[in-house]
Amino acid sequence: MYHKEIKIVDCTVRDGGLMNKWQFSDDFVKSVYNACVEAGVDYMEIGYKSSETAYSRIENGAWKFCEENDLRRIVGDNPSNTKISTMLDIGRIELDQIKPKKESIIDMMRVACYVHQMDKAIYHAEYCLDKGYEATINLMSVSTVNERDLDEALNDVSKSNVPIFYLVDSFGNMYCEHIETLARKYKNALPGKTIGIHAHNNMQLAFSNTITSIIEGITMLDSTFLGLGRGAGNCPTELLMAFLKNPKYRMLPVLQSIQDHILPLQKQIDWGYHIPYMISGSLNEHPKRAMEWMDSDRKDDFVAFLKNMHDKEILE
Amino acid sequence: MYHKEIKIVDCTVRDGGLMNKWQFSDDFVKSVYNACVEAGVDYMEIGYKSSETAYSRIENGAWKFCEENDLRRIVGDNPSNTKISTMLDIGRIELDQIKPKKESIIDMMRVACYVHQMDKAIYHAEYCLDKGYEATINLMSVSTVNERDLDEALNDVSKSNVPIFYLVDSFGNMYCEHIETLARKYKNALPGKTIGIHAHNNMQLAFSNTITSIIEGITMLDSTFLGLGRGAGNCPTELLMAFLKNPKYRMLPVLQSIQDHILPLQKQIDWGYHIPYMISGSLNEHPKRAMEWMDSDRKDDFVAFLKNMHDKEILE
Repeated sequence: MYHKEIKIVDCTVRDGGLMNKWQFSDDFVKSVYNACVEAGVDYMEIGYKSSETAYSRIENGAWKFCEENDLRRIVGDNPSNTKISTMLDIGRIELDQIKPKKESIIDMMRVACYVHQMDKAIYHAEYCLDKGYEATINLMSVSTVNERDLDEALNDVSKSNVPIFYLVDSFGNMYCEHIETLARKYKNALPGKTIGIHAHNNMQLAFSNTITSIIEGITMLDSTFLGLGRGAGNCPTELLMAFLKNPKYRMLPVLQSIQDHILPLQKQIDWGYHIPYMISGSLNEHPKRAMEWMDSDRKDDFVAFLKNMHDKEILE
Repeated sequence: MYHKEIKIVDCTVRDGGLMNKWQFSDDFVKSVYNACVEAGVDYMEIGYKSSETAYSRIENGAWKFCEENDLRRIVGDNPSNTKISTMLDIGRIELDQIKPKKESIIDMMRVACYVHQMDKAIYHAEYCLDKGYEATINLMSVSTVNERDLDEALNDVSKSNVPIFYLVDSFGNMYCEHIETLARKYKNALPGKTIGIHAHNNMQLAFSNTITSIIEGITMLDSTFLGLGRGAGNCPTELLMAFLKNPKYRMLPVLQSIQDHILPLQKQIDWGYHIPYMISGSLNEHPKRAMEWMDSDRKDDFVAFLKNMHDKEILE
């Protein structure tokens, strides 16, 4: 399945950091960066761009903030074809903290938002575009957005300068028919814009939903090494490369980084397919409660977790 | 997605036993059986029906043979709506060892075969039908069968009395477009027959391939608790129930058995998504070499495993 427009956006450090507050060693982040470069990954999303007034520097590692000096400690002047991306959360960053692109090693700013924040998201993304960055809007939790609100948001985006818009399955609730429906809706509403996919693996569907997205003409593909990411994690980068068989990608550097750094982390952090994440995904709920359960001493009591959930009748 | 014709065939003990030579405690097998009954599972495949001249009773547990006294120790007279299934491998059982149905607690015999064994498979399945059992043919490794041979096999099956035919992704190599193509081919070639799906999870696609199968009108769905099965394992029963939301199924008994028996086993046996299985799946190879690698002290050296594989250039 050859689509030369396809770009892989590796989010290992950014989404994976949601599991350990971005407390990664420099060795870890350098390994992921070097592997992305050698593997031909198009973008590496290295973290969030946040303000220190919004989050504690003591609790959170450097990749929650992505200061230039931290970034350059890893990527230097980034003499590679892998672009550097960071994510902005509305309200967690003051726009005057975003320098002009020529003073930054960051190439792309991705603005994450909920549907009611779309006006602000467009404002933020256009601000970043004006500063010289590439920019995207990533509309989160779309599996809980009603059609009227979604259509209005898409209409607003269609009139903006923002060139890239993401289909985001935050709760890991969707299967192929959801993806088909939304991909077609996004493409129809946003002619000329690039569409991306960011999937979560609560129901073991992150990779297959990414395949469905490719078939539907989505070309920006988010993934992470060994699926490392919040809760059930994401579409695995190595699987995407195995599927694409695109000559611009090489899997071996990714496997090397996985065996050196990601697999050891899996012995400490429970991302991936676990029953509480599957339950929250299938109930179309935020993974927060499942993550709390997985952090408790009752993590393996799945029956109790299901009995604690709203709407449990659907599954019992 | 309501299809009242859907039947779940839980293969936890049969396919899972490929990982431990069916050395399950009676408590384990009883837990799976009781959960299947309480959860409304339509068929429980409890093991292989094999001859003791083909396999050692010392090496292999009871569920490699499925003698009546072993079966009845677990299911008694099976006073439930869950039917009992066993699988036959061509050449590993003498047909005169298959008793008439009225002397057996087994309801269904599934004949597994390779494409060159189709004549024998039809003979075996019709023999079982004549003895009073339900019967299926499960054509394995179809991802390596050429179109000419597959069409001839399907033509032979179409003229037989065998009512159920399975699409089997033995190597975990297929994605949605493979499933669509084969499901349509099977349905066109076998009008009036029931089609089943048996998927493996090497590329995290067993569940999504089962969903695609349902969309294509396949109604016999193989699955296992927590995906327990050979190598990367199978489509998880709990996920299938979460997806189907069919009132005849209940997930809680499955979760109870998983937390009591399957999860503890996962600490001893490495089924599920592991990089060597992903590599063998994406190269369309039998999982045998990946399983040997996973049993060695180099199991986490993924780079070395890939370098050892034929056709590694596809992925490197």
